[in-house]
Amino acid sequence: MSELLDYLGRLSNWGRWGPDDQLGTLNLLTDGHRRRAAGLITTGRVVSCGWDIDTSEQPGDAGTAPRRMMTSTGQGQVPGAESPGLASAGEHWLLHPHGYRLTHLDGLSHIFWDGRMYNGRPAALVTADRGATELDITAVRDGVLTRAVLIDAAAHRGVDWLEPGDAVRLDEVLAILAEHDLQVSAGDAILLRTGYGAKVTRQGRRDDVRTGGRAGWHASCLPWFRERDVALIAADTANDADPSGYNGFRHPIHLVGIVAMGLWLVDNCQLETLAATCRELGRWEFAWALAPLAFAGATGSPVNPLAMF
Amino acid sequence: MSELLDYLGRLSNWGRWGPDDQLGTLNLLTDGHRRRAAGLITTGRVVSCGWDIDTSEQPGDAGTAPRRMMTSTGQGQVPGAESPGLASAGEHWLLHPHGYRLTHLDGLSHIFWDGRMYNGRPAALVTADRGATELDITAVRDGVLTRAVLIDAAAHRGVDWLEPGDAVRLDEVLAILAEHDLQVSAGDAILLRTGYGAKVTRQGRRDDVRTGGRAGWHASCLPWFRERDVALIAADTANDADPSGYNGFRHPIHLVGIVAMGLWLVDNCQLETLAATCRELGRWEFAWALAPLAFAGATGSPVNPLAMF
Amino acid sequence: MSELLDYLGRLSNWGRWGPDDQLGTLNLLTDGHRRRAAGLITTGRVVSCGWDIDTSEQPGDAGTAPRRMMTSTGQGQVPGAESPGLASAGEHWLLHPHGYRLTHLDGLSHIFWDGRMYNGRPAALVTADRGATELDITAVRDGVLTRAVLIDAAAHRGVDWLEPGDAVRLDEVLAILAEHDLQVSAGDAILLRTGYGAKVTRQGRRDDVRTGGRAGWHASCLPWFRERDVALIAADTANDADPSGYNGFRHPIHLVGIVAMGLWLVDNCQLETLAATCRELGRWEFAWALAPLAFAGATGSPVNPLAMF
Amino acid sequence: MSELLDYLGRLSNWGRWGPDDQLGTLNLLTDGHRRRAAGLITTGRVVSCGWDIDTSEQPGDAGTAPRRMMTSTGQGQVPGAESPGLASAGEHWLLHPHGYRLTHLDGLSHIFWDGRMYNGRPAALVTADRGATELDITAVRDGVLTRAVLIDAAAHRGVDWLEPGDAVRLDEVLAILAEHDLQVSAGDAILLRTGYGAKVTRQGRRDDVRTGGRAGWHASCLPWFRERDVALIAADTANDADPSGYNGFRHPIHLVGIVAMGLWLVDNCQLETLAATCRELGRWEFAWALAPLAFAGATGSPVNPLAMF
Repeated sequence: MSELLDYLGRLSNWGRWGPDDQLGTLNLLTDGHRRRAAGLITTGRVVSCGWDIDTSEQPGDAGTAPRRMMTSTGQGQVPGAESPGLASAGEHWLLHPHGYRLTHLDGLSHIFWDGRMYNGRPAALVTADRGATELDITAVRDGVLTRAVLIDAAAHRGVDWLEPGDAVRLDEVLAILAEHDLQVSAGDAILLRTGYGAKVTRQGRRDDVRTGGRAGWHASCLPWFRERDVALIAADTANDADPSGYNGFRHPIHLVGIVAMGLWLVDNCQLETLAATCRELGRWEFAWALAPLAFAGATGSPVNPLAMF
Repeated sequence: MSELLDYLGRLSNWGRWGPDDQLGTLNLLTDGHRRRAAGLITTGRVVSCGWDIDTSEQPGDAGTAPRRMMTSTGQGQVPGAESPGLASAGEHWLLHPHGYRLTHLDGLSHIFWDGRMYNGRPAALVTADRGATELDITAVRDGVLTRAVLIDAAAHRGVDWLEPGDAVRLDEVLAILAEHDLQVSAGDAILLRTGYGAKVTRQGRRDDVRTGGRAGWHASCLPWFRERDVALIAADTANDADPSGYNGFRHPIHLVGIVAMGLWLVDNCQLETLAATCRELGRWEFAWALAPLAFAGATGSPVNPLAMF
Repeated sequence: MSELLDYLGRLSNWGRWGPDDQLGTLNLLTDGHRRRAAGLITTGRVVSCGWDIDTSEQPGDAGTAPRRMMTSTGQGQVPGAESPGLASAGEHWLLHPHGYRLTHLDGLSHIFWDGRMYNGRPAALVTADRGATELDITAVRDGVLTRAVLIDAAAHRGVDWLEPGDAVRLDEVLAILAEHDLQVSAGDAILLRTGYGAKVTRQGRRDDVRTGGRAGWHASCLPWFRERDVALIAADTANDADPSGYNGFRHPIHLVGIVAMGLWLVDNCQLETLAATCRELGRWEFAWALAPLAFAGATGSPVNPLAMF
Repeated sequence: MSELLDYLGRLSNWGRWGPDDQLGTLNLLTDGHRRRAAGLITTGRVVSCGWDIDTSEQPGDAGTAPRRMMTSTGQGQVPGAESPGLASAGEHWLLHPHGYRLTHLDGLSHIFWDGRMYNGRPAALVTADRGATELDITAVRDGVLTRAVLIDAAAHRGVDWLEPGDAVRLDEVLAILAEHDLQVSAGDAILLRTGYGAKVTRQGRRDDVRTGGRAGWHASCLPWFRERDVALIAADTANDADPSGYNGFRHPIHLVGIVAMGLWLVDNCQLETLAATCRELGRWEFAWALAPLAFAGATGSPVNPLAMF
């Protein structure tokens, strides 16, 4: 735990981009970086890293299952009616852009420590009536285009998937990078595959991931994220290994990453198609695009991340 | 009107990609096309074509204004408490991905004619309990990356914005393309700027666009969209000029485009920043990415389209 | 099944109160009936027959669990602030007034048979955009005040609760009425206690009542409801015994009662307190009041029925 | 203002019914009181004091207009199909049980002063995730049955309706009571008619009552409410005259009534039918029943109050 408290101070980006900064590590992305990322698009293959959204209720939803509520339908529209006409269908969507199910981008107002958000802003600026009045998701309205690399820990370990609580430490990350001869530099995104998507596909979402634990990053990767100035991390789980190995800290990656570093996290990616594409092409780096919905006051956004080869 | 009925038959893509096709004109996009689109990213500039979402009620919402309902906040989180801890904020989103406000992609199940959807599928497949059981938005789960061109009709006419009912006809489109020496070919996206975003910025959303009309495409562009095999069209309004000039047909672009052609429409884009960027760079073509949320059964999706130069 | 089809014709109230009738069996309630009901209030004891509503997810919810979403709270309101002021808390409610959980009154537009509602009205009058354009719950805007009797089948059988599929037949109803020397006459409400509330209190809502069956009325009671001109029936389950004993008909009480008879059903009452009060006072008849929320277009309403002794 | 601060102390019921009290002035209701109320039901006439709920957007809604979202409909159900069957319709309701439109009962957790609720409970007990963890609306799960009197200020003044800001003072209340030879005693409900319902019926809800003011009770009535131990007050507006006449205090009735006295308020009643019934019967007292929905954590409830003569 003292290690995490040390991280909170030592890895901090508070003040680095000014007192009014809303962008955190996305400040590291430059036109040059985006241009180089686009240069990785050599085959024209595009792969989604997001799950389809559905309205089923799953263990661990805790009252957040999506709902789709139709406002008009095609029922009763019959071909051959005497006076045909244009009709339309539509619906309301009810979504909760957090938790352990929807693929989503966490905003920098999502996590607090000791009454503060990233950059020292008071947590109390996130209110029930107005939402996040600072550090809301609109900061990312221009989206993200960057270079990304896939860390396929399941493949590296030779397993179908990591088990709840399995944590991927820095040495393993470095070994996987070395195996594929990959470098990581400022502004990059790093995606971790634990194989959870294979488990879901095989077994369904039968486990309560809220209480039963999850595979993910070990907190020992945090100093390296900071040293390399990684701009985003993502995983096919909610990023944090749970249990985290730190007594009393369930989400050290969220805590240190979001609050201290202003690091952007994408939780609950679907990385099975991506991993298969990487293996097929023999490439573990690609361009990666996020187009969050800029909902004023929101603390995150559902996203459908696109990997472009 | 007989002209539109003729279009419904003559411009049809029903059966072109098989009886089970879910993709319509997105079939026209190939790896090669995406690769060439990526080649347009030469500066690394990325510009959003989406509006921020907010919860204000606007004329013409008709009961669809977005709502953000917090499930936890930072209120009461005070720095310096005796035992600091991690806390978080989150919220529910309630959205309606159609209408005249949210930037959204229409699914091919959104519009019906004579009891049928695109490809002749029965409208009755869109139900209140299950949503769109065919042609739902999940068809686009892998997103869109393509070449796009901007048709800046407001600039071409030398006005701040077109007025409600002002329709952009094919000859004007062709003149604008010629002015910038642009070609349009299969799989491209075409974006129409009427200047509505400038009007909103200047005046607010004070008009009821549902009843008061809108600028947009004239239906005479439809045969050319089909001839050139355009994959997507978009506008800073809801695409259709309203009144449309066709008695009894308020939305000929939606009707012929979606139902007959399987054409993908993005409504209500924010194109002011894009137009300024085009002028600055002297370029009216760019790569364009859409990352719709693949909500099973949904008839559309809110999107934040990204233009990449 | 032929018995049920016979009931549909023989027990019908279609046309009895005119072609435009919206009230069904509530037409049977007169000022005189209400006056006599009020005369039963001799002790001043009032007992709720409704369950508390909560946001937990239960087996069998099928995407309908209630949600309470705060729009303002008291968090961060600290006594002793320099300039105290008035603050307030509020919330959105999301409810689904049907299913197996909320205590609710079914509207006469809730159930269809062969494309028709009560009184022969077309089912197609209930639409996705406008809701129930006839026979909606506003018909009951003036509420219900009537005489009610409790049929305590669990007590009569000497069990804590009836098991799923246990059906209460007419002979048992008549025996219970005779035991307490009770008559039933036009306009009355009849409440059935299966003891399900005791089961819920003891075991929680651990069973999926949607698939696992329920105790309730046997369809053989329907002719007697019609003969006695009962105005409302209620139960601590969803009224229908399930399995119903009729092949292919899961809800004969809903079908014949609502569609043919225009009978009003209150599902999922909490009758434990009521039964205890009846035993304590030695009285199984009382005044009963319902105050449904008159939501235009709705097919039912959550209610908190009050039994007044 | 010093007058209101004086009221906050002098009229307080804090501690009167113990430190854990959840009921406030509803403690004043006894079986005897309810029995006498029931004795007023001599004609069997029952009149609703609630507005129908609809989904139209009104000035002053501030993002709280009700929504009805169908989950199944009758569209496409056609009589005469080969295999007829039972079908059903249902919907989600989205409601906000406060504001200036829905007829609703305010819970004792709805209003705070100086960080505290009624009985000195900390406002911070009302949280975004759990709602009101004390003093929520479940306290009233057994409903209300009491004697009520109608104060028809519009009729007394000989006007169709009072104008925004018109305040009904104690002397006027007493004059109206004397005119009808009515007493008020402990546990009674007092209903104020300003005629706002007539205005709505005549003109629609065209004014923004949130900003444009409302007729209602003058704060000078508060000591008398306390002296007579009134249990509930109600009005056809949101009870408080606005402007209130007290600088900086927009809602003195809500403030002193709810926070200091634990008084129950019903806002936005529809009293036109009631007033007509009173005139017809020559009676301004009647039994009054409320059956709030006991939603755990909620700060109020929509209600359909029933007046029984």
